[in-house]
Amino acid sequence: MKTLATDPSHKRFYKSQSISGIDFHSLALELLNGSEAISPGKERPIVSSPNPEEVIQLVDQIRQILFPGNLGSKVLHPDQPEKNLTLEIQALYNILVEQIHWSFSHEWCQLERPSPFYRDRGYEKAAEFLQSLPSTKKLLVKDIQAAFEGDPAAKSHTEIIVSYPGLFALTVYRIAHTLQVMGLPLLPRMMTEYAHSRTGIDIHPGARIGEYFFIDHGTGVVIGETTVIGDRVRIYQGVTLGALSLPPNAGNLYRNKKRHPTIEDDVIIYANATILGGETIIGARTTIGGNVWITESVPPDTKVILNHPDHIYLRN
Amino acid sequence: MKTLATDPSHKRFYKSQSISGIDFHSLALELLNGSEAISPGKERPIVSSPNPEEVIQLVDQIRQILFPGNLGSKVLHPDQPEKNLTLEIQALYNILVEQIHWSFSHEWCQLERPSPFYRDRGYEKAAEFLQSLPSTKKLLVKDIQAAFEGDPAAKSHTEIIVSYPGLFALTVYRIAHTLQVMGLPLLPRMMTEYAHSRTGIDIHPGARIGEYFFIDHGTGVVIGETTVIGDRVRIYQGVTLGALSLPPNAGNLYRNKKRHPTIEDDVIIYANATILGGETIIGARTTIGGNVWITESVPPDTKVILNHPDHIYLRN
Amino acid sequence: MKTLATDPSHKRFYKSQSISGIDFHSLALELLNGSEAISPGKERPIVSSPNPEEVIQLVDQIRQILFPGNLGSKVLHPDQPEKNLTLEIQALYNILVEQIHWSFSHEWCQLERPSPFYRDRGYEKAAEFLQSLPSTKKLLVKDIQAAFEGDPAAKSHTEIIVSYPGLFALTVYRIAHTLQVMGLPLLPRMMTEYAHSRTGIDIHPGARIGEYFFIDHGTGVVIGETTVIGDRVRIYQGVTLGALSLPPNAGNLYRNKKRHPTIEDDVIIYANATILGGETIIGARTTIGGNVWITESVPPDTKVILNHPDHIYLRN
Repeated sequence: MKTLATDPSHKRFYKSQSISGIDFHSLALELLNGSEAISPGKERPIVSSPNPEEVIQLVDQIRQILFPGNLGSKVLHPDQPEKNLTLEIQALYNILVEQIHWSFSHEWCQLERPSPFYRDRGYEKAAEFLQSLPSTKKLLVKDIQAAFEGDPAAKSHTEIIVSYPGLFALTVYRIAHTLQVMGLPLLPRMMTEYAHSRTGIDIHPGARIGEYFFIDHGTGVVIGETTVIGDRVRIYQGVTLGALSLPPNAGNLYRNKKRHPTIEDDVIIYANATILGGETIIGARTTIGGNVWITESVPPDTKVILNHPDHIYLRN
Repeated sequence: MKTLATDPSHKRFYKSQSISGIDFHSLALELLNGSEAISPGKERPIVSSPNPEEVIQLVDQIRQILFPGNLGSKVLHPDQPEKNLTLEIQALYNILVEQIHWSFSHEWCQLERPSPFYRDRGYEKAAEFLQSLPSTKKLLVKDIQAAFEGDPAAKSHTEIIVSYPGLFALTVYRIAHTLQVMGLPLLPRMMTEYAHSRTGIDIHPGARIGEYFFIDHGTGVVIGETTVIGDRVRIYQGVTLGALSLPPNAGNLYRNKKRHPTIEDDVIIYANATILGGETIIGARTTIGGNVWITESVPPDTKVILNHPDHIYLRN
Repeated sequence: MKTLATDPSHKRFYKSQSISGIDFHSLALELLNGSEAISPGKERPIVSSPNPEEVIQLVDQIRQILFPGNLGSKVLHPDQPEKNLTLEIQALYNILVEQIHWSFSHEWCQLERPSPFYRDRGYEKAAEFLQSLPSTKKLLVKDIQAAFEGDPAAKSHTEIIVSYPGLFALTVYRIAHTLQVMGLPLLPRMMTEYAHSRTGIDIHPGARIGEYFFIDHGTGVVIGETTVIGDRVRIYQGVTLGALSLPPNAGNLYRNKKRHPTIEDDVIIYANATILGGETIIGARTTIGGNVWITESVPPDTKVILNHPDHIYLRN
């Protein structure tokens, strides 16, 4: 990059900096004192939350372990591939302990200083999570099969693993949901927001999603915190499974209430359809057409489509 | 990674390369001579624009300074956290001077060679920007409060800071808008496009946005260059605040005209609503329902929703 | 980052790990044996696919070569810029040979072990690809001109090159389409999904797109595998050029059939319009309005817009 060292006006730089007239120290104080409204426990030690960059590494490591040889850059020894994997799992364990430790510490630092107690929680939870990986993988293998069956453009299972955003988002969701159920603060949502950022697919870690789920294209998909989805469901880009309109102060009024719909088995929801409301149930084997707008339940075995859309055709 | 060094056919590689029959040098010339149409000043020295990777680092550093202890990976000394921060602000200052220097140099290299003059501009502008950080932070703290009040799924202020894409996009927008108003070329748009890339939220640095703004989910949101938004406004994913249809050569005809709507205080705009036109005003305290399509002004204290959508229900 | 080394409970950590009671080795075996359903050739050596991180580097290198001085961080020597570029092209050649080699190896490892044969394919294909770069650049220069003419917010050609997601996605698509036509497995789709991830614009490498194409904003755009687009076409965010509804087992039934529309020259398609079906043709010089939903052909020189949308206005 262009470094000052290579720059003729190098000396002038530090000269000008010293005369920049900026009081960096009082600027720092002013910035630190600007947070009262959102961090009441200011006088207590500030423990940093899990580092987003480290959370990204963590997710990528778990994906490597779930799909050995597909996402990695190594050629696994055909004779004993489990050797690599054993080491990778041990490495993952150590990092998990760290991150879980910091999640609890940050959450609880308002009450007391971080302590070995949180680290013990890290050990338990990390072990519990590792034990869950084989069943998570079984679920993801079914999701891959659903993608291959559902998408004529899919050329191979590998293509789906290495390039399909829907599978990426679903992998991260299934990992994060496990951690959410284990009661971890912060980490699950940080993981799904990493997936949201990479795929445009926003699945809250609290949602419940069945087997053989397939999201095609996916950009703009929103699956809210209290959504429940059955087995063999397929959805397309821009589908919202959301809440009905909320009053200004909805945050506190509706926290922990079921606000998002229930989608039963074998439902297909086409691009940009919107389904809203915690009491809205889409019955089994029903198809929701593209751009359709639903705020009430739909019976099973139904097809809902736009009536001939009301367009005007003009000749230039 | 798989290196050639570990590859049996290593020697064959360089052999084959030497006989690859590619004339790399004339390929380079051909590529360099392919740009006349877009870079008229070809014979003048080509000064590189700010490096997108460095712009990303710059944005992330500013965010760390605005939210110390939340995005970083350090535990701040409870006794004197301002020490870290002072050093981080000084480091930021140096990088800002660099990037601002290169923005001006690239912009102006058609006219003359880069000179210390641009670096002096770098000093002024970098200092001016640093002085603006405390008021930017005050605004962002209000945006965080708006998110916590507006979203039932929000568990804590920290969760919003470390994981909410709406706050990320808004933080980058508020930084970029300050630089835009300071007259910086390139850098502001590069910053907001980084946020667009990470969040799917496309806010032009030229837009004007009031206090307590909250974007939920956010994927697909577009807020055009000449949009004006009041205080306590809340919008959802897929909302477009855009321009009316443009003739083929719109680029030159409409540059610098107000083409995007005005949204007054306390308005809520639900998912995938579209509001178009520079003379369109959404009055204070009005609510725009999901999927609604607006090209004319709406009075204050109004609620606009889809009439019972025209759907057909078929039994399978 | 917060390392255990700096942590008082360091010793306890390894103690607890040794008593963590996790059998890492059998966990690894369980995970390896979970893939039968998707990787039948399990007993054969697993050759890793191209590494997504390396594919990202590859794309970024190609972009640097196509737009020297705009995306890079170097100041090119005004006297002999082609020197840098020659070296960069040679470096690209070597990496291309690698990645193409691994694409074929992974694809074919079900049949036989990787062999120098694939590497020879790497040489041919890499050379063929490099020769295509000048014509790709000519196309992209026209796309940049289309963006500048089409977008009133565009301040300079450089701004478009360094910050416009539409140009980014189109650059990656034009590169990937070339490799797709050359018969490369995996790599083309991995490239376009990288662009999808960064821009929210999902263009399948199999689509065919003419000259002077411009995508504005772009988040949520989907352009399917068998889409055909003429010259001087402009589209906006959220536009879907997709397939009609598919039966559950569509994957195998519809593979390699034309499922996506044909868009003729000089068509404009506004935000969030949806056009579906392999036999749907949008005639030359036609304009499709925002939110319009099309499943049948539209004649040339036509304008299709929403009839006055059916909204209800309520006073609060």
